[in-house]
Amino acid sequence: MTVPQVPNFWRSPLDPERVMNVQVTRWQDNQQHQREDHLTVEEPLEIRLNQHSLAVIMRTPGHDHELALGFLLTEGIIKTLDDILLIQDGIDADDLPLANVVDVTLRPSSADLAEASDTPAFQRHFAVSASCGLCGKNSIADLLCNIPPVAIDDAHISVGAIYNLASQLRAQQDVFSHTGGLHAAGLFTSAGKLSLLREDVGRHNAVDKLIGHGLLHHTLPYTHHILLVSGRTSFEIIQKALLARIPCIAAISAPSSLAVELADTGGITLIGFLRDHSMNVYTHPERIIE
Amino acid sequence: MTVPQVPNFWRSPLDPERVMNVQVTRWQDNQQHQREDHLTVEEPLEIRLNQHSLAVIMRTPGHDHELALGFLLTEGIIKTLDDILLIQDGIDADDLPLANVVDVTLRPSSADLAEASDTPAFQRHFAVSASCGLCGKNSIADLLCNIPPVAIDDAHISVGAIYNLASQLRAQQDVFSHTGGLHAAGLFTSAGKLSLLREDVGRHNAVDKLIGHGLLHHTLPYTHHILLVSGRTSFEIIQKALLARIPCIAAISAPSSLAVELADTGGITLIGFLRDHSMNVYTHPERIIE
Repeated sequence: MTVPQVPNFWRSPLDPERVMNVQVTRWQDNQQHQREDHLTVEEPLEIRLNQHSLAVIMRTPGHDHELALGFLLTEGIIKTLDDILLIQDGIDADDLPLANVVDVTLRPSSADLAEASDTPAFQRHFAVSASCGLCGKNSIADLLCNIPPVAIDDAHISVGAIYNLASQLRAQQDVFSHTGGLHAAGLFTSAGKLSLLREDVGRHNAVDKLIGHGLLHHTLPYTHHILLVSGRTSFEIIQKALLARIPCIAAISAPSSLAVELADTGGITLIGFLRDHSMNVYTHPERIIE
Repeated sequence: MTVPQVPNFWRSPLDPERVMNVQVTRWQDNQQHQREDHLTVEEPLEIRLNQHSLAVIMRTPGHDHELALGFLLTEGIIKTLDDILLIQDGIDADDLPLANVVDVTLRPSSADLAEASDTPAFQRHFAVSASCGLCGKNSIADLLCNIPPVAIDDAHISVGAIYNLASQLRAQQDVFSHTGGLHAAGLFTSAGKLSLLREDVGRHNAVDKLIGHGLLHHTLPYTHHILLVSGRTSFEIIQKALLARIPCIAAISAPSSLAVELADTGGITLIGFLRDHSMNVYTHPERIIE
């Protein structure tokens, strides 16, 4: 077998960073023909912390600083933007740009973190949380020792506002949505107005970008917001939202059991199977009113 | 705010290991009522290698040994079943069972691996690959240095066989599919007959379980098989299939750009948007015949 020398895919002139064009053999019943199609770009992003490689994340390019900051926050490596001295695109020893690398330098006051990042124990912790979030019931308890539940106050969200979330998200998706290969995450006000939309091949990344944006622009915590995710909800999505203090999460698909358990304990209203006129509320339904 | 003392979810008597029942507030237009619903169980699995914690994976319980073996193989930590001396459910110092832990002991002949697993370098490698697979173009080249492409021989797969894959998968999904929260992966013969089905909250896990099953039962490599996945295909899915030598991957949804690039270089036929009478073939269409 010979590896093809001329690949049948190329950057889309419409959006070369995020969309690839591809030559596809389209079969319909027993007929085949060639046609052009679009793909979502997936590429690695290396996050370096004080000159050490911390993680490589497969992601869709764009908003890389947001992604890096959101990742550092939701992994518990930084607590505020003040922990960061500098964030910039990667450069090599000759000051030439390094594609797909973000360099983060911690403030000297965060030196304990920087120092800790050299130790195997730190790396070990990171390996675990990168692959899976924290681990299960004991860790839910641990997490809530450090992170109190979101407050349940008298603020309510109307069911009509929630029914309108998904159509707003769809309306805002652009050339990107042609590829069918993306997860979307939208941040809405508690009145149901879209504030920010991020899309990525990885659903965790889309949420990290939203959270990193808040860190960069000093709009965290998201205490009066709703998070909408296009897919399913797992433990990790809830964990990230809890860190950003988001009181309400809606999803188009189903949650996992651990997502429901963490949302319940964390004081978060968790909605699944959201349609234009119906939804399931799994936890803290008291926030939703007619 | 007080954390609820009585959670509104409990194990399903039908399938307590994998299905949770939950009390849901169902909204339809402006009406709400209470009803019972099902959730997919998500729980952590800790994989221990020679008494060291190697990884914690969020997964749906069941086939844990398969998952652990498939993970160890596709992460490049073991090469064959011969590298394993013992695999068993976790026990504590008093020989009491530890839930959600699998203990793996490597054969002394794999002592270099075991020893290596204590070093930061090994852990670093693992942190990277657990979060994202390998990283991008350079790593695709690296990967193919060690793993040659799947051979393209004269074996063909009929388009009719492929059109029938998804309906067979749906027919085999059980109580589980009620939850709507699962990824499925099916292994089929090249004639399109279902050999094995695995389901999980994590799509990588479902594929690792299929591959771990092959390792346990000496049916690897899957040289004459087709892999069907219920969702999208990313770099990592293709990487796992390449290690298991699967020549054809079909998916219900879209691939990412890096999935297409790796499948192209790796000699794998990659199909997306599979329906009962149509599909897109992204790479190596020469394997498919009418």
